[in-house]
Amino acid sequence: MPTINDIAAKLGVSKSTVSKALNNAEDISQSLRKKILETAVEIGYEKKRIRKNAPKKLCILVENMDYKNPSGFGHDLVIGFEQMAVPAGWEVDLVVMSPEKQSQTSYDAFMLGHQYEGAFILGFSLLDPWMQDLKTARTPAVLYDNYILENPLVAYVGVNSDEGFHMSVSYLKKLGHRRIGYLGCNMDSQISRERYQAYLRAMELHKLDVNMDLVGRSPFISKCIQEYLPLLLKRQATAILCEHDQLANAVLIHCAELGFRIPEDISVIGFDDAAFSAYASPPLTTIRQNQNALGRCGYYALASLLNNTFISSLLLRAELIERDSTGPARRFPS
Amino acid sequence: MPTINDIAAKLGVSKSTVSKALNNAEDISQSLRKKILETAVEIGYEKKRIRKNAPKKLCILVENMDYKNPSGFGHDLVIGFEQMAVPAGWEVDLVVMSPEKQSQTSYDAFMLGHQYEGAFILGFSLLDPWMQDLKTARTPAVLYDNYILENPLVAYVGVNSDEGFHMSVSYLKKLGHRRIGYLGCNMDSQISRERYQAYLRAMELHKLDVNMDLVGRSPFISKCIQEYLPLLLKRQATAILCEHDQLANAVLIHCAELGFRIPEDISVIGFDDAAFSAYASPPLTTIRQNQNALGRCGYYALASLLNNTFISSLLLRAELIERDSTGPARRFPS
Repeated sequence: MPTINDIAAKLGVSKSTVSKALNNAEDISQSLRKKILETAVEIGYEKKRIRKNAPKKLCILVENMDYKNPSGFGHDLVIGFEQMAVPAGWEVDLVVMSPEKQSQTSYDAFMLGHQYEGAFILGFSLLDPWMQDLKTARTPAVLYDNYILENPLVAYVGVNSDEGFHMSVSYLKKLGHRRIGYLGCNMDSQISRERYQAYLRAMELHKLDVNMDLVGRSPFISKCIQEYLPLLLKRQATAILCEHDQLANAVLIHCAELGFRIPEDISVIGFDDAAFSAYASPPLTTIRQNQNALGRCGYYALASLLNNTFISSLLLRAELIERDSTGPARRFPS
Repeated sequence: MPTINDIAAKLGVSKSTVSKALNNAEDISQSLRKKILETAVEIGYEKKRIRKNAPKKLCILVENMDYKNPSGFGHDLVIGFEQMAVPAGWEVDLVVMSPEKQSQTSYDAFMLGHQYEGAFILGFSLLDPWMQDLKTARTPAVLYDNYILENPLVAYVGVNSDEGFHMSVSYLKKLGHRRIGYLGCNMDSQISRERYQAYLRAMELHKLDVNMDLVGRSPFISKCIQEYLPLLLKRQATAILCEHDQLANAVLIHCAELGFRIPEDISVIGFDDAAFSAYASPPLTTIRQNQNALGRCGYYALASLLNNTFISSLLLRAELIERDSTGPARRFPS
């Protein structure tokens, strides 16, 4: 097991300088500190808590997600995680992340530098620099709605997309819908790809044809709304499944502008049950994610990894929330 | 909330008779007891522990699986579950099941009659009568390697099949293999279907053609070995992925009988890392399932369901164990 001496020898600095870097002391330059941390990670140094009563620390890394407002999507994820972690004796830091911050240091060096033993990661996109780091990271991490194929130290928590789309398609089919379209944006995310695949599998499971004329996917929400939505309406889709509630809400607004009644002319279903969805016009039928439960599961998955139980994924059940944006299928004159 | 009185009224029996049935007393006939339990389930009766120190009970239902011998596949699943459940204050009963026993009473009535609050279910096939009951069951259950689509009170634990086949195909590809075949039997199981799908997805992920001439699936292991295996060999497969180690072991034996050398002529990979796999001839390369970790995860999933956290699935990472049944791909004269 490499020691502080090995780091010092490799960089030609004193042991006390290395110690300062590892303990976040103030009298050391940021560039030297960074060099020492990256070297420590490179040679496989692992910090031990020397004092038995030193705090055990975890972090929640947040990006692209509102966690401050009680109505923000991340709020209850954070609460749920803390509800489990704090009674178990952990100190939990909330750290706001950005691609820029990530490109300044590696994930492992960041974690070592702050003495975090594991991370719960919210809102990262596939393009975030640390998504590459996580493929070989040695500090345990649990990703909400993201998945790393090969690293057993990284686990994935989320809601079962297949169940969500199965429930939506099953429900719409009972209402007489057959021409069920799909709109998705946000292609740089793992979950975006997964939800689209789940839509395709649900249609197949229910023996409904997937008509690619009724599918629109673009990284630009404006393109989904202004280009694909009118096409789906023209092509007589009777229902549209949306990748997430924000998109579904934009669909509701634009349909009204185009003179289409919801749900008489077209049914719309979202995904997430965001805080605004119950107050959309009309209130949005959607698939709920229970964020508090997801946060609690995030902690359990991280605790398991820290305990050498290598969970790959932990998925919660989806739940269909029926509101007023869905109704019996419109009949077109044949 | 229905009470004992409601059950008694519905059946025209006394309250004390109902109480005897619910408390497993001896002076009541089995047929009357069964009728009372089924009625209790039908009207939605839920038994409360009246005395605070009454034991909290869970059960492990086992079928088609050796759990008695330390080398049996179920042994460590049971141990892992108990290691978590017992310190948490649960009494755990191990109950050997059969389709006959299942057809005598419904799952919920059985659980109510024995005062079990939840079950960890090992080794059921898709044809087991209770697999139908579980679609609407109200007593929480965690299934090892089985999945119920619509009931949030039933969760699934297992090893990630996609990761397992990804690792196998990735490893074989590095050894120069392109013509990678698949053999599977045991079609009545959820996991059999899933592993076959995982094989197809792994081949696609690694941009290898799936040649249906190199795929053999049959409920009869004899058909796999005597009919499909010779065909795969004749069609110049250089490697065979097997659904489980038992099948892989039969492949090793039959290849030797047919004069094929392993791994020089053909590489073979199993799934499970059963106890005999390290001692096969040659020792078998396989995907390990960590049964102890699976048992522990089984308990966590059940505890979550009992706590109204509706886990859908909890999958462990797969692990490739390299032994001597795999080697560089054979080159055929073109």
